[in-house]
Amino acid sequence: MTPDAKILAALRDHPEGVSGEQLATSLAISRAAVWARMESLRQAGYDITAGPHNGYRLVGTPDLLHADDLLSRVSGRVRVIGRDIQVFKETTSTNDIIEKMARDGLREGFVVFAESQTKGRGRLGRKWISPPGKGLWLSVLLRPALRPQETTQLTIASATALLRSIIQVTGLQPQIKWPNDLLIGDRKVAGILTELSAEPDRVHHVTLGIGVDVNMKESEWPLELRSVATSLRMVAGFEISRVELAATLLENLDRDYARICRGGFGEVADEWEEHCTTLGREVTVQMGHRTIQGRAESLDDDGALLVRTEHGLLERVMGGDLTLKKRPADAS
Amino acid sequence: MTPDAKILAALRDHPEGVSGEQLATSLAISRAAVWARMESLRQAGYDITAGPHNGYRLVGTPDLLHADDLLSRVSGRVRVIGRDIQVFKETTSTNDIIEKMARDGLREGFVVFAESQTKGRGRLGRKWISPPGKGLWLSVLLRPALRPQETTQLTIASATALLRSIIQVTGLQPQIKWPNDLLIGDRKVAGILTELSAEPDRVHHVTLGIGVDVNMKESEWPLELRSVATSLRMVAGFEISRVELAATLLENLDRDYARICRGGFGEVADEWEEHCTTLGREVTVQMGHRTIQGRAESLDDDGALLVRTEHGLLERVMGGDLTLKKRPADAS
Repeated sequence: MTPDAKILAALRDHPEGVSGEQLATSLAISRAAVWARMESLRQAGYDITAGPHNGYRLVGTPDLLHADDLLSRVSGRVRVIGRDIQVFKETTSTNDIIEKMARDGLREGFVVFAESQTKGRGRLGRKWISPPGKGLWLSVLLRPALRPQETTQLTIASATALLRSIIQVTGLQPQIKWPNDLLIGDRKVAGILTELSAEPDRVHHVTLGIGVDVNMKESEWPLELRSVATSLRMVAGFEISRVELAATLLENLDRDYARICRGGFGEVADEWEEHCTTLGREVTVQMGHRTIQGRAESLDDDGALLVRTEHGLLERVMGGDLTLKKRPADAS
Repeated sequence: MTPDAKILAALRDHPEGVSGEQLATSLAISRAAVWARMESLRQAGYDITAGPHNGYRLVGTPDLLHADDLLSRVSGRVRVIGRDIQVFKETTSTNDIIEKMARDGLREGFVVFAESQTKGRGRLGRKWISPPGKGLWLSVLLRPALRPQETTQLTIASATALLRSIIQVTGLQPQIKWPNDLLIGDRKVAGILTELSAEPDRVHHVTLGIGVDVNMKESEWPLELRSVATSLRMVAGFEISRVELAATLLENLDRDYARICRGGFGEVADEWEEHCTTLGREVTVQMGHRTIQGRAESLDDDGALLVRTEHGLLERVMGGDLTLKKRPADAS
């Protein structure tokens, strides 16, 4: 942990206040250095009071993504995902940054957040709108011992971790649309993009990209997306703490990644299925020039969707563009 | 084609000689420019004579990889692979260059050669020795409509194209060791490294790396590799033209890639099987912590190897480290 992360952790551990002397001793830096770090944290938006009796107290935290703050929140709670964190004010796409880090040999678990992305992207080359300060746009570097076709397991696990985090932080109940979207009602609120670098039989690394529309307002989407997109804030009716959601998400991702790594995809899939809006529904999947229609029955061991067609065949769907047929109750 | 490529093509088309005036007209450049290009080609090692009656004649070609020369040799004979060529004097690995080109959006079929590689690599992270001027070290950028697990088809197709090229140029008869090595006797003479960038269900691009030990001498390998590696020159007993082999290889790769793209993997696999030393042999495959032993029976539709174990089970092998059991006749 950096000094800033240690200071924030100490302030959070001592809501009653902590003296500059104590901080200087435990961090092995001078009292002047403690003072300088406090000033820098205040400038970043942290509301830190200082009194002769109580010492320093943290009375307000900005909803800014701050690498040190996030590190101090997840430190000791995560083993791999979130042990290294970097926050960018603006990037093309956080997946691009992780991709470069992967090639430079950085260890797995590195997480990159961006306050905004100029070229955020979703599956099938689609654009992902990522305005400053309104969402969580992050990517995670993983180096799993999986084969390329098994990496759908990671998409499933991330969707499950993200869903659990949103429930924990907001109380909202999104549903999962196979393989990578989170919906509230019929509208998309989050998505996952799993990209990999591999040999045909062996994954080198995976870049897991996650986008969550946290505090966006309807006016922030282009007109054509307003009927299909929503944000946690729009549904909840109040601002959601991005920092809290980010820290909760890293913990859940770390836990579910560990489950996948020890061969526990079955457990993850069970939780996924409970919250899945795709299973049991009539679906249409466009895979290149081919269209599959039928009833989504279950997941297989690799995370592929098994669809029973009207001819009774069980088709294995790895990807493609899936549309849910509206339920009779949804029809207007 | 660049002016140099056009000049070389014209010189090859007119072994009796071609005048500066003719060249200037057909290339739409000045006679002075023709003269300057000739000088530059001579400096690169091309032996070009000039006479008042016959004009320019190409009487000798160096065994140097020259992008324009290669382009002029394959132009009109390839549709995708080899329509863009670049030659580097030295790179870390030609796969690294193609990887960057892919991310910059260059079109498929781009081929990069290097006279030497400082960090040439093979499958399973192994080092590939690539000294200057002694081999063909090249990579090809492909953007096939395949799923990640189908890309073994490209390894199989490349091995087949490489084998056919070596037979055509040298008369030697290598054999294929599944999935990516060419052997002569029991020694490796060439290898293929297929790397991909993908989503779990969709390939973004493939970097096909090929290394051929053309004119290497035994002393150019470290001691520990001398008993397992060989070169075309060591077996044939004479120097092999790298330029001729390179041009032939690009044509064969282009042809076999076209076959894969139109769904003709079956044809390619038939040719592969004819020259395969793996099928019908007892093999041991190390896949991570797992070892599979049995008789290699055939390829499946994705290029995976089907191995019949002693318990009669048919195991599908996508990768791993394969060892051939010596045949009784090989035993010493």
